[in-house]
Formats: sequence, structure tokens, C-alpha cells
Amino acid sequence: MSLGTEEKHAQTMANTLAEADYRGRYRHGLTSLEMILEDVDIGACRPDYKPKILKETPAIAWVDGAMNLGPVVGNFCMDIAIKKAKEVGIGWVTCKHSNDYGLSTCYALRAYNVGFIGFACSNSPAMVVPTRGKKPVLGPNPICLAAPSKREEEGVIMDMTTSTVDWAEIDQYKIKGQELPKGWAATKDGTETTDISQATYLLPLGGTEDRSGYKGGKFGPYVKETHSARDPANLCHTFFALDPAKFNPAFKLHMQDLTAALRSTDSVTPDTPVWIAGDPERMHMKAVKEAGGIRYSKKNLQTFEEIAFKYGVTPLKAKDSCYFPS
Amino acid sequence: MSLGTEEKHAQTMANTLAEADYRGRYRHGLTSLEMILEDVDIGACRPDYKPKILKETPAIAWVDGAMNLGPVVGNFCMDIAIKKAKEVGIGWVTCKHSNDYGLSTCYALRAYNVGFIGFACSNSPAMVVPTRGKKPVLGPNPICLAAPSKREEEGVIMDMTTSTVDWAEIDQYKIKGQELPKGWAATKDGTETTDISQATYLLPLGGTEDRSGYKGGKFGPYVKETHSARDPANLCHTFFALDPAKFNPAFKLHMQDLTAALRSTDSVTPDTPVWIAGDPERMHMKAVKEAGGIRYSKKNLQTFEEIAFKYGVTPLKAKDSCYFPS
Repeated sequence: MSLGTEEKHAQTMANTLAEADYRGRYRHGLTSLEMILEDVDIGACRPDYKPKILKETPAIAWVDGAMNLGPVVGNFCMDIAIKKAKEVGIGWVTCKHSNDYGLSTCYALRAYNVGFIGFACSNSPAMVVPTRGKKPVLGPNPICLAAPSKREEEGVIMDMTTSTVDWAEIDQYKIKGQELPKGWAATKDGTETTDISQATYLLPLGGTEDRSGYKGGKFGPYVKETHSARDPANLCHTFFALDPAKFNPAFKLHMQDLTAALRSTDSVTPDTPVWIAGDPERMHMKAVKEAGGIRYSKKNLQTFEEIAFKYGVTPLKAKDSCYFPS
Repeated sequence: MSLGTEEKHAQTMANTLAEADYRGRYRHGLTSLEMILEDVDIGACRPDYKPKILKETPAIAWVDGAMNLGPVVGNFCMDIAIKKAKEVGIGWVTCKHSNDYGLSTCYALRAYNVGFIGFACSNSPAMVVPTRGKKPVLGPNPICLAAPSKREEEGVIMDMTTSTVDWAEIDQYKIKGQELPKGWAATKDGTETTDISQATYLLPLGGTEDRSGYKGGKFGPYVKETHSARDPANLCHTFFALDPAKFNPAFKLHMQDLTAALRSTDSVTPDTPVWIAGDPERMHMKAVKEAGGIRYSKKNLQTFEEIAFKYGVTPLKAKDSCYFPS
């Protein structure tokens, strides 16, 4: 707000960052605030501009995000999608001129929370080499699909990148000093590597060809490194909301049966049960509730304090000594 | 037709099988005819019943496939989707009570061929173990997404299973007597294996957890083995057609730029250029054209002859000595 953002938009931004941390997806959480503020600071992101609909039919809309904050554009789009889905069963909305929208789950959940199937995806800066390629021309392009179940806690919330893994997961291996699994990363020449010090680019979902990495490859190469240039990020997102009850009224019951069947499958590793999409996040949210809050590292808290000082606002108050979960 | 199928439906079935072989996807081609005929023979598939719309809005429809042939149901659904997309930008159609629809690409291409983005997916018999699971409760559930480009031959046609690979690819390794790559298959106890003689189930896209296999897991466990039971297959499919020009009028031009950028990326392996989705099929179609026809093995041709004899129809005539491409 000290940078001229409307209160409701600042709130949207804050909610999206907090939701990511709450779900254990720290890369999209509060630690990204510094870069977002910088984008606003230099005018690459314009929280004072208004997203608007360029074209629409009863089922679709094309939106100009007007360079506003990614989460503001994202909610604007998804809310249109939900409104249309209420009327004609589906609402499909794409937008241009947006900024990093953070965690895709946040938008899919808006539809999910009214009982609809929600979908969100975005392009992102090129750091994935195409199958056999030497240089990155694809983004990791995150996707989330959320499908509600009759039993609320059993819905499927699949949030993924189209690369094998996100940088966040590679960073974890860096911290642990471990060798990377095959199929995650490539050197600066595009060759697959398990050596963390050589990992420069990401490999598409599945890794190299012999692991079906060739399945990737459907998005764009022209996306700028979001937080390294003074140019606007100009990202594009796609959202849809779909009312499953307008198809099969028993959809949610079927989802419940499906997840029950998955959970009742014996595990190969007895100590670790079969996972369904959304479980790691559910486990993290449970841990946050039990701990009475989200845990940040001392280093993170110090950064938050510096940010608060820089923009002349009251710093976050940490409850007690904190650590960053591994 | 000798089993009571209307001529136009028999033609649809034939086109779908031939298209699969033409594209080099033999598992969904003419070699599957024997099983399809058996399904009709025993009444599990009813080509005399009529698919019908159960519910619809200007943007969506829910269809009862009435146990007709998969390709008949598939085309019925996709044509509704295309009609709706022409009016409101998107048509989303799901159906139940269908049979094996063969190659997903065939349906996505119907939309693609009128300049739309086409999507088709289907459930399929459970043979994929969920992440960590011992027993298969998910199908390989094929998906195709086809997006047209300004330059016709440059469109992206992504056809994939949600398992790492299809059985067809494992069969190739069997023929060659090679060890399987990691992440493809599991033993009868759900443990990952590279031993072809132990491979009983498929692993989800990405393989085991360390290769992000956990991304899979969003479909159903209750699907029967299509061709082993007298019960109807009762498969479900989802299709959509989306008119990209109703969003961004420059969509096809962007697709052209995208594929050009992918193709111009230097390859890690100089003899094999960077692939975009649809290239292996394009290469196969070129080979078929050059050869003047699709090649089948002697064993296949013999089976086709036996089928013709069984149903009292004129057998296929092969042009010359044939072989099955490896």
C-alpha cells in the first residue's frame, strides 16, 4: 500500500503469499515479496492499472491484465470463469499482460471452494530445454487442477510444473549436498546432469526421452526472466471453472470413491502411504496448524524486517524462535 | 457391417483404426479389430444403439454413449463440442457408456482441422500403480491436445498416456530383449523394475517419486479390463474444442513462432533434431506415403484374413511383401 496499491489488492497479494507458505510451497510465498516489490518499484508491475475484459461470450473471456499484480489479475479472471460456469457449466478465461501469479493452486481453489473443478496455468520464463535441445526455450509453466470430493478433505488438488521438478526441489538437494536424480536438470549445454554444481536448466516432465520427457513441449519460449529485467513480465495465464454437477450429478461421490480406492491401496513402502494429489500440502497445513503458525528461517525474518524498514511499515512479528522446514 | 453396424459407423471405425496405423500408433490400429469385433459379437458393444445428449447448455453437454463403438461415440461428442465452440468459443462434452475409442488424436484432430484447439481424453482399465502403491488402481488414461499453427504442418499434437509409457513401448523392449529404463514398470507387488519378465504394471508419468511420478493420480480405479470381460466396458471420455481466435486473433501466428523457436534450438545429439509434439507421427506418415501404404507383418495379415473368413467378408489385399516397422 505504501507503493500505491489499493488495500484490497494488497490484501489479495498478501493472502496469496501466505497461502503458498501455509501449503509448504515456500518458493511462491513471502520470500518472493522482495522481488514483487521491486517490480512495482520500477514500474514493471502497475497495481494502479485496472484489468479489463477484451472479448467475451457466455462461456469465455479474454482479459488484459493491465500489468497489475499477478494474484489480482488471477482472481479477476477466475471470478469471471466461476460466474460463467454457474450459468453455462464452464467458464474459460485467458489473459495477457499479467505478472507472476505465485501458486497456481490459489486460483483453482476459488472454483474448488464453490464445488467446481478449477484449473489454472501460466507461462513462465524459459528455463526448460525441449527434448534433445541445448538451450531452454520453454518455461516450467505451472498447472493446477483441483477437483472437489463429497468429503471435503478428499478432493484432488494437483499442482505441478511441466518440468520434472521446480528449482525449489533442486535447491533442497543443494542444501543437502546430494546428487540429483536423473531426469531433473541439464548443464549449460543441455546435457542431462546429476551434478548439482552443473545444473543450469530444467528438463521437461519425465526427463530425457527414455523417460518419456518428450511428452512436454507445448508452451512458449519468449517469456522473459520475470525478476531480472526492467521490462514488464507480460505473462499469460489460463483459467477455467467447470461445474461437474451440470454433467454428472454424482461427480463428487465418484471423487470420494476414487480417493478412497487410492488410499486403500497397499503401499510398497509400509511407512509411507499411497499419496493422492494434494496430500503433501495437506500434511504441511496440518503441521502449520499444530505449530500455531508458519515457520520462517532467521534469515528470512531478517529480510522481512529490512523490507518493512525500506517501505516504512511495521515489521512482521515472529511468535518465537523459528526455523525453515526442510 | 456383417454384425449389424450401420455403414457410416463401420466407416468411422475403419477410419479411426487406419488413422492410428498411419500415424504409427499400431496398438490402436487394425490389430485391435479382433477384440472390437468380439465385443460386438458378445453384445458388450452395441453399434445398433444411438448415443444421445443427456444434458446441455450453450457451452457443455453430457452424453450417454449407449455402448456404441468408441469412435462413433467420440465423433458424436467432439462434433457437438465443435458446434458449441463455433458459437460461444468453447464446447466441453463428457460421455459415459462408451467403448475403447482407440487413438485420442483422432478426436482432437476433428477440432484442429477446423482451426480450433482440440482435446480428448478417456479412462482405461487400471494397470498403473499410484505413487507408492502396490496394486494398479489407475488407468494409463490417454490424453491428446492438438493446437493449430498458421503453418499447417507445424501444429502441436500432443498425444500421451498418464503412465510413463504405454504397453506398446514396453513390448518394443521385449522384442529387442533389452532392459527397461527405470520408471516405466512395476512388478506384481508394485516395486519398480527394469526386468521385462517382471513387468506387470505401469508406473505413473515420471515414474517413482524421485522422478516426480507423484504428479500422476487424478483418474479412476474402477475401469474394467476392456477386452477380457463380457460386461460392457462402460468407458468415459471428455472432449473439448476451443476457438483460439475468440481469444487472441494472433494465436496461430504465435503457435508458428513457438514451433519455429523450438525447431531452431540446437540439439544435444546433432543427428536428432529437437522434437515438438506430433513429430514422430509426422515422420511415420511421411514414411507411409513414401512406401505407398501402411506396412503390416505377415502374422497380422494372416489374422486379418482369418477375421475376414470368420465374418464372411472380402479379405484385405496386401500390395506386396510386408513387414511391421520396429
